[in-house]
Amino acid sequence: MRVNSEPAVVRGFRFSGVSAGLKKAAGAKDLGLIVADAPAAAAAVFSANHVKAAPVYVTMDRIRAGRLQAVVANSGCANSFTGQPGLKLARDSCDLVAKEIGCAAALIAPSSTGVIGHLFDLEKFGAGVREAARELRADGMEDFARAVMTTDTRPKIASVSIRIGGAKVTIAGVAKGAGMISPKMATMLAYLVTDAAVSTPQLRVALKAALPHSFNAITVDGDMSTNDTVILMASGAAGNRELSRKDLDTFNRGVEAVSAALARELVYDGEGATKLVTVAVKGAKSPADAERCARQIANSPLVKTAFFGCDPNVGRILMAAGSSGAMVQSDRLVLAIAGVKVAARGALLVAALPGAAEKMRAREFTVSLDLKLGKATSTILTCDLSYDYVRINAEYTT
Amino acid sequence: MRVNSEPAVVRGFRFSGVSAGLKKAAGAKDLGLIVADAPAAAAAVFSANHVKAAPVYVTMDRIRAGRLQAVVANSGCANSFTGQPGLKLARDSCDLVAKEIGCAAALIAPSSTGVIGHLFDLEKFGAGVREAARELRADGMEDFARAVMTTDTRPKIASVSIRIGGAKVTIAGVAKGAGMISPKMATMLAYLVTDAAVSTPQLRVALKAALPHSFNAITVDGDMSTNDTVILMASGAAGNRELSRKDLDTFNRGVEAVSAALARELVYDGEGATKLVTVAVKGAKSPADAERCARQIANSPLVKTAFFGCDPNVGRILMAAGSSGAMVQSDRLVLAIAGVKVAARGALLVAALPGAAEKMRAREFTVSLDLKLGKATSTILTCDLSYDYVRINAEYTT
Repeated sequence: MRVNSEPAVVRGFRFSGVSAGLKKAAGAKDLGLIVADAPAAAAAVFSANHVKAAPVYVTMDRIRAGRLQAVVANSGCANSFTGQPGLKLARDSCDLVAKEIGCAAALIAPSSTGVIGHLFDLEKFGAGVREAARELRADGMEDFARAVMTTDTRPKIASVSIRIGGAKVTIAGVAKGAGMISPKMATMLAYLVTDAAVSTPQLRVALKAALPHSFNAITVDGDMSTNDTVILMASGAAGNRELSRKDLDTFNRGVEAVSAALARELVYDGEGATKLVTVAVKGAKSPADAERCARQIANSPLVKTAFFGCDPNVGRILMAAGSSGAMVQSDRLVLAIAGVKVAARGALLVAALPGAAEKMRAREFTVSLDLKLGKATSTILTCDLSYDYVRINAEYTT
Repeated sequence: MRVNSEPAVVRGFRFSGVSAGLKKAAGAKDLGLIVADAPAAAAAVFSANHVKAAPVYVTMDRIRAGRLQAVVANSGCANSFTGQPGLKLARDSCDLVAKEIGCAAALIAPSSTGVIGHLFDLEKFGAGVREAARELRADGMEDFARAVMTTDTRPKIASVSIRIGGAKVTIAGVAKGAGMISPKMATMLAYLVTDAAVSTPQLRVALKAALPHSFNAITVDGDMSTNDTVILMASGAAGNRELSRKDLDTFNRGVEAVSAALARELVYDGEGATKLVTVAVKGAKSPADAERCARQIANSPLVKTAFFGCDPNVGRILMAAGSSGAMVQSDRLVLAIAGVKVAARGALLVAALPGAAEKMRAREFTVSLDLKLGKATSTILTCDLSYDYVRINAEYTT
């Protein structure tokens, strides 16, 4: 399925992104709207963090009805760890949007991202909402994508077009990421919209199916955000007839393809990242073992600094695999880095290391570990740990 | 109990450390011996990593008999992921020591630390052993400590003197650490010796009791080494009478005090560390919750970079606590950084942040999180994540 990274038009939805003065940088977009022409079928997943942000609680409550008409998202302030005042602020901010676009507040999902522990200025927010409502356009997706950026260096957009139920259908998504990325059950902020006519239960199935191989298969720093939210909305404007099982399969694959493309973008643009590394574990004794092993390698600071240094450091990768709790037998496993076999039959292939180091200079490569103990596999996308990760996070202050 | 960090003399043991040419740096000490005058009662704990180094397997086997006469340790090569040749090398290296000091090879424990995946040169090793045997001295503890250093910046020694069983008894220890430090059940290399007359079962109890609050309560980077080993040997040269229960309590506290002092040194000298931070969680619902929570905070790259930046980043600490899996209620917890209360009753205490930031400039401070949900506590020592951690680990190549 061909995934497009250009902004897409999705019938039944309009988008905008404006500067409301919530971010410190003057003129930076920090408030975005997604508005459907009418209430849309909707599904969502959220952060598994026990400390959740106020807008997450509000959206969790509202999504239960299975319908949303709008999303209002801001950057510059996470409205997390803000107690009752934060919950009130999240609801009040939706009320402002409801008034401006003329729909029930219960159909509006709020999202916030940025610094934790602070409230945003509701007056500035209101002025931003009025401007954002005026700016709503069918081709406003990129403006929205820019409005939710924090330490991201570029907007993240993906879309696919498929033919199902006798109609051409578009599935498009926008995401923001960069740091605090290690989703469990959900991810950072991501919004997917489609003009397909699909029911809420069908959307829930599609979203749940898409997660394991997209937003839940990535890590930047092993830190799980308090604000993670993925929302999927369907306007039905494509006018397709009821979807057959085969159509639904195609639709689900479309949602997964868009989700995976956005998830990949999150890692590619991870804080300070200079490399995108796919950690592919196979031959594990169980699926849990495979994931544990891949995740431990993908999150190890020693492995990630070795990636940064273009160092085919077999020892650190095996150290991580061995400490993951997964069954590992060092005399059976086969390890390849960037396509070069570097360990097999219990020994390091020393002569292969210079070639592997050379190939690690690429912007992207794969670490393949075959444990040779079973059939389970797991793939996690990660990035390297560079000086810039430290700079960004030592300087990004409360 | 007063812990001394100067090299100690422990009756019944001699030490040495020489340069055998196993490290790249010319003249750097890289081979050390600890030799008891006669077979000594001994206990040990090892890495829980599924990928263990060859010398760990050999020592695990030999310690079962409860007696050791010597330890031979080298830096510059971990002899890990080296298969059967590695096991043979570990045994052969002990045979050389046995011949030189005149004891059974089965009474010698080998340890190695350094790069994973390579074998060391047995001929160089043998020449080193001959020199090290000649150099053995009662006051050679610091030479031994230097011989096991890798990225450590200074030798790590601790000792206590106690009076038990009618005699003055010394417990002294040496450790090496710096990176790949997040022990589970055991730690990096640490060797404790005592002149107390104590049995092997008593040593095992003392060592097991000392771990939770020493080597198992520290982290530098959350990465678990393949070579972790702690050995405790008792010569009996102090000539004390059989120890009463009270004496044994004192002895156990002595072993714990020495272990804790060495563990603290490992973190203080963690790779690139500019700060030693005590993460103290209390009020947790269960001991497992307390430890999970403290460990997640202590290992979070976002929290550790904030420490480096002297940033009292409450959001990141709570993000880590909330993602640990431990029960956390954001409206109940109280958080203090460097003695300054920065969060309570579900809100950030914004006015307190500049004061906390100022106090974080200290070389050492504490992060205290009271979850107010129960009585369980956990304390983990960690360090910050600095540019130098990245530099050291991006440049330290295979």
